[in-house]
Amino acid sequence: MAQKGDLMTVRHDIRVLDATLRDGGLVNNFYFTDDFVKALYRTNVKAGVDYMEFGYKASKEIFDADKYGKWKFCDEDAVREIVGENDTDLKIAVMADVGRCDYKNDIVAKADSAIDMVRVATYVNTMPAAIDMIEDAKNKGYEVTCNIMAISNAQEGDVRTALKMLGESPVECIYIVDSYGSLFPEQIRRITELYLEFASIYDKKLGIHAHNNQQLAFANTIEAVASGVSYLDATMSGMGRGAGNCSMELLLGFLKNPKYKQIPILKFLEEHMLGLKKEGAVWGYDIPYMLTGQLDLHPSSAIEAVKAGRTDYKEFYMEMVDR
Amino acid sequence: MAQKGDLMTVRHDIRVLDATLRDGGLVNNFYFTDDFVKALYRTNVKAGVDYMEFGYKASKEIFDADKYGKWKFCDEDAVREIVGENDTDLKIAVMADVGRCDYKNDIVAKADSAIDMVRVATYVNTMPAAIDMIEDAKNKGYEVTCNIMAISNAQEGDVRTALKMLGESPVECIYIVDSYGSLFPEQIRRITELYLEFASIYDKKLGIHAHNNQQLAFANTIEAVASGVSYLDATMSGMGRGAGNCSMELLLGFLKNPKYKQIPILKFLEEHMLGLKKEGAVWGYDIPYMLTGQLDLHPSSAIEAVKAGRTDYKEFYMEMVDR
Repeated sequence: MAQKGDLMTVRHDIRVLDATLRDGGLVNNFYFTDDFVKALYRTNVKAGVDYMEFGYKASKEIFDADKYGKWKFCDEDAVREIVGENDTDLKIAVMADVGRCDYKNDIVAKADSAIDMVRVATYVNTMPAAIDMIEDAKNKGYEVTCNIMAISNAQEGDVRTALKMLGESPVECIYIVDSYGSLFPEQIRRITELYLEFASIYDKKLGIHAHNNQQLAFANTIEAVASGVSYLDATMSGMGRGAGNCSMELLLGFLKNPKYKQIPILKFLEEHMLGLKKEGAVWGYDIPYMLTGQLDLHPSSAIEAVKAGRTDYKEFYMEMVDR
Repeated sequence: MAQKGDLMTVRHDIRVLDATLRDGGLVNNFYFTDDFVKALYRTNVKAGVDYMEFGYKASKEIFDADKYGKWKFCDEDAVREIVGENDTDLKIAVMADVGRCDYKNDIVAKADSAIDMVRVATYVNTMPAAIDMIEDAKNKGYEVTCNIMAISNAQEGDVRTALKMLGESPVECIYIVDSYGSLFPEQIRRITELYLEFASIYDKKLGIHAHNNQQLAFANTIEAVASGVSYLDATMSGMGRGAGNCSMELLLGFLKNPKYKQIPILKFLEEHMLGLKKEGAVWGYDIPYMLTGQLDLHPSSAIEAVKAGRTDYKEFYMEMVDR
């Protein structure tokens, strides 16, 4: 596969998406202060970030609104309170999970919303529902992307079918998602090649959402860039479920487009991210996450182990391989 | 460049070197307890690691032996006390720095030593001295490798000259060294290609020693493997100067040769590495290291900043770019 651009190239197709509130929200049940969220918004505007994902559009019929911060639901009012008319170049995104979002009711027409983009998240086996959500969001006037999750555990034949269905849908961008943090750069290159096969037929963009279980979130993201992926997810300090994501500060240090500025990010890290850690939010590379990544398992057991303060790594490993 | 092997391949040319005592020694001035060193030795034997680097052969004329632990000097007696006759498959290595090692006197004939391999470390501009050290060690009966340090700051023409000199020397393996943690995988692939040009002419092996300033130590190591590099440096928990190195636990989780066992490593991490951290040894990815890596600078300023507990990242960045 030919490399797309090199280290000196400005790639005008690239879009950086800050997923701190959404994937980071999985760490603290979406309890971010308004002060934090406003500062993050201003930081992303200054840093030239293209999209800021505010959280999920989760259904309050399914989830108890008293048990989560407001970014689990991203009500219009909540978003408006932060962004006003959002008279900036930063676009606003939300994620909508198949089966957890009452999209027909909770996603209003784009004309009435501060939100610009709906990111539909699905497993391979729930593609028909995902397609319905994509069409719904598109008809309402949104940009729409789709994350196919947990592909490291899926059959290639099923992934091909999903890509064809997405190709024929009105989705704009298809995301490669390494949910378990199990993929190596050479696999990312191979997967990108597969996705590009469909993306070029159907004229879609590709994105990547990586996890850091094996300290490869940044590496996999920049390898995907070199292979032709355009939409790049990152979070401040890599904040995200379990081992976390690709760090914004690493990504903006790599991208050569002068529109991206690192200094606002550095300010935000010192003024806001250190505080979150001090208050007890826990994320980032650790041995239990590494092990579930290496074993291509969902990180839930590792998250439990880290929460419980377990450091009996060998025992944890044996539990993972014996189950 | 063609990929050498893939994820399913056992590559019989691969050699794993544990550099915990040597690069990790830069974190704690080589003050490891004998208990730690013995456990590390037993762990490496059980895990199938090929080489264990015990530390430096530094000159006591230059360095005050009272200010460092014994692994800065690696006296024969000290090594013997750990390994006895070393009746195992694990080979013993030491590093000898150009200008800091009285090699004529301090490195004895292999026949009288527990050490198997001398790793000469040099900058591009001290190659003639390095060649003398390589010849000396070879004549005394050792396996010899050479690390050309800080190549991210060197001219390619000078690196080519150095590679030719090494090619014509009796060195067995030439190491690609990312001293500043500034290199991206695509650069590692390009550099490997350059080194392979000379390695194939002169029939030398290649090695890689990576740093984790940009969370790329593991990624760069496995990219180098895929490109044809054989000798791989790693350390327990990535312990090493500043941001540290490629983690042994990540590397052995990646390599497919069944001779490498991960479980002894996991035991060692829980029983010994967590304790080192608790006692105050500090290493691993942090924003100041990321910044010196991105700026292709020696990590010394970042090490000072982290030691001083500085978290004014923006200010630190400005100091680095303004100097």
